[in-house]
Formats: sequence, structure tokens, C-alpha cells
Amino acid sequence: MPTILIIGAGKSSTYLIQYLLDTLQPKSRKLLLADLNLETAREKLAGYADAEAVALDLQDASARKQLIQRADVVISMLPAAMHPLVAKDCLAFGRHFFTASYESAEMREWKSTIEEKKLFWLNEMGLDPGLDHLSAMKIIDEARAEGNEIIGFKSFCGGLICPESPQNPWKYKFTWNPRNVVLAGQGTSRFIRNGRLKYVPYHMLFRRTEPVHIPGAGDFEAYPNRDSLSYRKVYGLENIPTLLRGTLRNKGFCRSWDFFVQLGMTDDSFIMDLPEDFTYRQFTNTFLPFHATKTVEEKILELLPFADEALLEQVRWLGLLAHTPMKQRKGSPAMLLQGVLEEKWALGLDDKDMIVMQHQFILQRPDGTRLERLSNLVVKGETQERTAMAKTVGLPLAIAVDLFLDGKIPLIGLHIPVQKEIYLPVLEKIAQAGITFQETTRLLEPAAP
Amino acid sequence: MPTILIIGAGKSSTYLIQYLLDTLQPKSRKLLLADLNLETAREKLAGYADAEAVALDLQDASARKQLIQRADVVISMLPAAMHPLVAKDCLAFGRHFFTASYESAEMREWKSTIEEKKLFWLNEMGLDPGLDHLSAMKIIDEARAEGNEIIGFKSFCGGLICPESPQNPWKYKFTWNPRNVVLAGQGTSRFIRNGRLKYVPYHMLFRRTEPVHIPGAGDFEAYPNRDSLSYRKVYGLENIPTLLRGTLRNKGFCRSWDFFVQLGMTDDSFIMDLPEDFTYRQFTNTFLPFHATKTVEEKILELLPFADEALLEQVRWLGLLAHTPMKQRKGSPAMLLQGVLEEKWALGLDDKDMIVMQHQFILQRPDGTRLERLSNLVVKGETQERTAMAKTVGLPLAIAVDLFLDGKIPLIGLHIPVQKEIYLPVLEKIAQAGITFQETTRLLEPAAP
Repeated sequence: MPTILIIGAGKSSTYLIQYLLDTLQPKSRKLLLADLNLETAREKLAGYADAEAVALDLQDASARKQLIQRADVVISMLPAAMHPLVAKDCLAFGRHFFTASYESAEMREWKSTIEEKKLFWLNEMGLDPGLDHLSAMKIIDEARAEGNEIIGFKSFCGGLICPESPQNPWKYKFTWNPRNVVLAGQGTSRFIRNGRLKYVPYHMLFRRTEPVHIPGAGDFEAYPNRDSLSYRKVYGLENIPTLLRGTLRNKGFCRSWDFFVQLGMTDDSFIMDLPEDFTYRQFTNTFLPFHATKTVEEKILELLPFADEALLEQVRWLGLLAHTPMKQRKGSPAMLLQGVLEEKWALGLDDKDMIVMQHQFILQRPDGTRLERLSNLVVKGETQERTAMAKTVGLPLAIAVDLFLDGKIPLIGLHIPVQKEIYLPVLEKIAQAGITFQETTRLLEPAAP
Repeated sequence: MPTILIIGAGKSSTYLIQYLLDTLQPKSRKLLLADLNLETAREKLAGYADAEAVALDLQDASARKQLIQRADVVISMLPAAMHPLVAKDCLAFGRHFFTASYESAEMREWKSTIEEKKLFWLNEMGLDPGLDHLSAMKIIDEARAEGNEIIGFKSFCGGLICPESPQNPWKYKFTWNPRNVVLAGQGTSRFIRNGRLKYVPYHMLFRRTEPVHIPGAGDFEAYPNRDSLSYRKVYGLENIPTLLRGTLRNKGFCRSWDFFVQLGMTDDSFIMDLPEDFTYRQFTNTFLPFHATKTVEEKILELLPFADEALLEQVRWLGLLAHTPMKQRKGSPAMLLQGVLEEKWALGLDDKDMIVMQHQFILQRPDGTRLERLSNLVVKGETQERTAMAKTVGLPLAIAVDLFLDGKIPLIGLHIPVQKEIYLPVLEKIAQAGITFQETTRLLEPAAP
């Protein structure tokens, strides 16, 4: 009786757990669901036989090792930094291992051991990374089989709020880890366009956006997301002249977010320890030049060329111009800003989230003509518990584990889902679960000479 | 016979060595001058008895320890990162220790051991830090003795090229470590002004300048230099409403330098590995948005609101718009930029450097009236070897060691030069060597109610 162990029973595991629970009886499997909080795990298993909730403190090495030895396949839904604890045990005890996180350099060092032990380890099997790999590689392989050359690939993804949900002046709410959202884009983003390498420093990032339209979802803008160049190797597109990965936001959001970036309010490099009674307005003012008589509003309008009354209204709505004492006064600027945003950008009970993804391929046919092939994905959340994020992260993982246990992924070793053996069966199953990519192709006008 | 050991015989040690050499015979001392390159050390000692040049590879622990045991006082002129190697030996063998570098947290942990062993360790005894401490603390102590309250303190320092030397379109040449100049200001600068904390992110730094006039030297501009707030404790000014430390540049320089900052060319966080035949113009273009037809120049003018023809001319003069293959193609943007600047901003044979420093104090007298007290320092270099930088870094150190060996600094423990026992005798001697601060005081108009 094959045993699956899922570590982490939080909100983002909802679909993952459900999908695998439904396979237990028909396929004679057992599921162990471990969480620091036993109750959290128990709730998710209500009514299912062959499923067992386990309380697990990851730092308790002996409990952790015992639990891992009971499983054949281990799925880690922990924060990425905690995977190594689990992964090392899986390697030692020879267990298969699945995550939705980026494959780490450390894991790559174990590659040959994983192969020798005939294990199947699959990372980057969630949404982004995950669904992006599956759907992109399908198009890349197909285009090549058709004899086309891939001369452009832009890939965009975003976790947003459903347009049908109540909106705020920012048209944004946190549907994912708020800290990651506040720190997003720090460092230098890199991509290649028409053969030209491009490097975008953080303070320019939210000005360097491009519009993206997704049918059925709306108009968005994308900013370049970290190191697109590394994907040349991942996708076997070493000589592609245009390759860009970007993050999608609602139209206009980036210009407003740039307010925080330009002022330095997303800085996470030092700790502020502000005096008692320090107000939100004073907090904002610490990032503005001193002036004996000008107001905070006047200084914002003067300092930032893009600032206008509409932006001030958004900032005001967040409470950042208010003479109100701050609730949290110690932390990096980014941490203090996050505190403010978490209150204002919290999901309401009726809010639903939405995942949007678009791949834009430019294909050159043997006769020199060019095609644009788009792949669009729109997934909307059902409830606060059954979010689009949990669905798009959890289902690919669940389906991969199910297929693997059924012997339908005939691979061993360390993988990300870029091979036919993985993406074909997973995409088929995932379409049955309601996650479908809409592909369109059109002939482009000949480029000007 | 007291023995002084100087480690590091490079250009910045010129004055230090000379001053101490001249004390050997009259005061019956011995000097050991150690350098990785024996010849460098030998040249500096020509004609002096009681002075010995030593070849020293710092990583050779046994040679290093033997040498340190031969000395009573050790002066480290090494790069700051290498002090610990020497300092640990000095602690173990009970040697006095002097540097011109910042006191490190590691050293502070040894404070009680230094005291127990009755050693005198003095850091921050160069120019900045060094002369700034001496001259500021003298004014602070005097002002307090006069019954005044110190309500404002701004301190500026810069290493520049003499206005009499041949100029280039940037009015700047490297008179100090080029890497430090290219990376200057990264991180977040902090200061307090009229009781308001101010945080300036790097990408805003070179816009947030203030004008500074120094009689006999000219008109400058200053940008805030790192964490001014930490000086509240150093100078005992915990409640001062205005405290700012800044770096001086020639008027207009910061706006031009901001070109590199805004484009991301001072980024040191990742390595570029550019293809063969990559030109300087292509390098510049990697930091600009893609456009099918616009030139690099057009894109610069469009992207940066402050860019104009004069700026383009400065950039052109550096060769950064030229269709010439780059000499160096692998390194961080900052390293590649440094390579370009080192060629163009190198000191010519007839160039002389200049050190400028200004303290601006606002003092409140018991009757409520306010005084402005300025302290100005201008030191010009004599030759390429006898630079103002070497003089202002080396003489304070040399004088402190000389006074200490003469028993005229009656202190033990870990110090920076903020105490009367140090700054009074050193300032007196340093004035005799031609480094004098010009102090002026004027009554300020009453502040508007």
C-alpha cells in the first residue's frame, strides 16, 4: 500500500490534499498529512479513511525521520528555506520527493545520488514555477516539431484579485505571501530583447513595464521578473534573441507602487526603531526631503515626477498621510510598510482571487514568415479557502504524484517538469480538473526591411 | 629602544613613514617597515639608520607573529578587511595598535582584554575618520564649556583634484581608491534634520545634495554619507535635532554621476560576461530600454529627466558611447565602469589632489541667540607622491604614535580620538606640520517665530 506524506496543511495545500484523498480508496493508497498544528491537519481529512493527521515539529529530528520512513512519496509544502531538512532525510532513506519550489543548487549536488538510488525527485511543480514550464515546453516542442524556429518568448504571470470582487483604490489585495509582494523585484532584472541584453535596476523596474491583454481577464501591465536569461538553458533556447519573464499587475498599479520604491519604503536592509507616538504621516515624511514649510503632500508632488492627486489619494487611503500613531514602530521600512498594507489589502470574506498567465511566442517558419502564438490561462478562485492560487499550485503537484504512483511517469532522477514524459500527462489531467490553456496563433505582418 | 612597526609601505604611508623616521635618532627609536614588496619598503627608508625594511606575506603566520613580537607599537596601513589578522596578534602578544580605519565590532569585543593588558589601541586616526573627530570634538567641548547648546552639526569632507590642476569635463579624478568611489553611497543614508529622521535610498542620494562653500577652495555640493545617526553617540550629541555627515564633490558632479546610478551602472551585485567585440556603446545600451529605431543618445535623453547635451558630452568623453570593443568584458557593472573611469580619471603627472573639510555648527547661547561656527580645512597635495590624502591620513597617525611613545597621551584601552587627551596635543602638532583648521563664528538672525 503506497504511502504519501504531505508536510504542511495550510491554505495552499487545500486542492493538493483533496485531489490525493480522492485517490486513496480507488487506488489503495495511504495518506499522512503532517502539520505543526494537528488540528489544521485533522480538519482537512474529515471523513476519509486511510488518511492520518500527524503533528510534526520539523526541528524534532527523530520524529521527522520516523515519519519520512513511513512514506514512499514525500510532498513538501513548507516555505522554500525549510525544504532541505526534509529533502536530506528523503535522500538518506530513499524516498521520492515533490515540491512546488525552485530546484536549489544544493539539490543539484545530490543529482547522482538521487539517480543511483533510483528515486524520482520533482521540483518546480506548482504554478510559477510549474504550470509555466508545462505549457511553455509543450509549445516549444510542438513548434520545433513543425519545423519552426522560436525567435521570441515572453512569459507573464500574476496573482491578483478577481475583477468581479469589490475593488479598492489600488485594485490590489494580497492573495499570496505579503512579504514577497513587498520585496518583489529587488536586485537587478535581466532579459534579452532582439538580441540585446537588458539590465534593469530595481528603481527603474516599475517604469519599464509593458501592456498585456488577457482575453476574459482584462488589461494588465508586466514588469521584468528577475533573471530571465537563466531560462535560456532551462528551455533549451540558448540563442533566442528575445526572452523575458514578467509579473502581471493591474493597469496603473506599477506607477503607484513605484511611489514606495522611489521613496525607499520597500527597503529591507536596515531596522528603524521609531519613537512612541510616531505617526504614519511622520513615517512617510522620513523618506522625503526636509522643508521648513512645505507639507508632506507638496513634497511628494515635487519629488516624484509621476506623482499626482490620484496617487496622493491612494496613499491617503492607506493611512500613510494620517496623523495617527503607528501600530508597529520597529522593523525595516519594508516590514513597516507591509504591516500597513496587510490591514488595507486583506481579502474580504467575499473576495476571490485570480491567476493569470500568458506566454507570447514568436515563431519563424521555414519560409521566413512569422507566427505569434499565445497561450492564456485564467483561473478564478471559488471561495476564500478554495483559491485560484491553491488550485494552480496544488493540482499540478497532486496530479504528478498520482501519475507517478500509477507508473505513468517513467523517469528517475532530479527533474523539473520540462520533459514530455511529465508535461503531456499532467496537462491532460489538469485540463480535466478545469485548468485549461487557451492557445491562439496568428500570422504576423512581414517585419519592415 | 622602543620599536615601531608600520605594515604597508604604499603611497598613503609616505608622510607617516617620513614623520616617524625623523623621530628615530632624536628619540632613540627603531622603525620596522613591512611590505609584501621589500623594494617598496626599502625605497622609503633610504638614508636612515635605525630603520629596517622587511618583506612580509601577511598569510605567513609565523613570520607575521615574529615580526609583531619585535615591535612595541604596530601601525596597520593595510586595507580595513586585513586589520584583524594583525590586531589578533597584537592582542595576543600585548602590543599597542594604531589604524586610520573604523573601529570594528570585533575589536569592541576585545575592549576589556585590551584594558587588562594595559594596551593603547587607537583607531579612526586618519583623515575621515580622524581629523574630523579631532576638530569636531574640540569645537563641541569648547562650545559646551562656553555654556552653549549644540543644536546643529553638519560635517562634510571630500578628496578632490586641485582647482589649479588641469581639469576634465567631469572636474573629477581618482585621488583615492577608485572602487570605493564607484560604490560610494550604496545602501540607505540616514540623518536627522530639525528633529526629523531622514532616510535616503541610494537612487535618490545624488539628487538630495546641498551646496557648501569653502573659502580658498571653491563651491561644492554634498550628498549625505551613510549613517549620520550613529555619530550621535560617538560625539555625545544624543538629542541633537540636526546631524548630517556628507561627502563633498565639485558643483554639478552629483547630477552627472547620477547618470550611472540611475542606469544601474554602479551595480556590484551580479557579474556580466559579455560577448567578444561587445562595444562600450552596447554596454551603455544594456541599461537602456529597447527601441527599434531610437539611438542610445535619444533613449538617455528620454529616460532621465535631468539628462541634457552637456551630460551626453561627459558620457561621450568617457568613451561610453563609442563603437569600440571593451577592454574588460567580465565583471559587475560597477567593475566594468571602474575600468573605464580609471583610464579617464587617472591623475596626470602634474596633477595635485586636494582635501576639503567643513564642519557647520549651530550653537544656542544661554540667552537664546544662535551662533554659526564653521571650521574649514583645505590641504593641497605637493606632488603625485606627496598627496594631500597621504598627508592628512598619515600625519595624524604618526603624531599620535610619537606623542604616545613620548608619554604625552596618558590613556590605555580601546579609543577613537574624541578625548581631549588625544585631540589637543595632536591638533597642536598637526598645525605645526601645516594642517590648520580655520574657524569662524557669526551671530545668526533670530529664527522666525
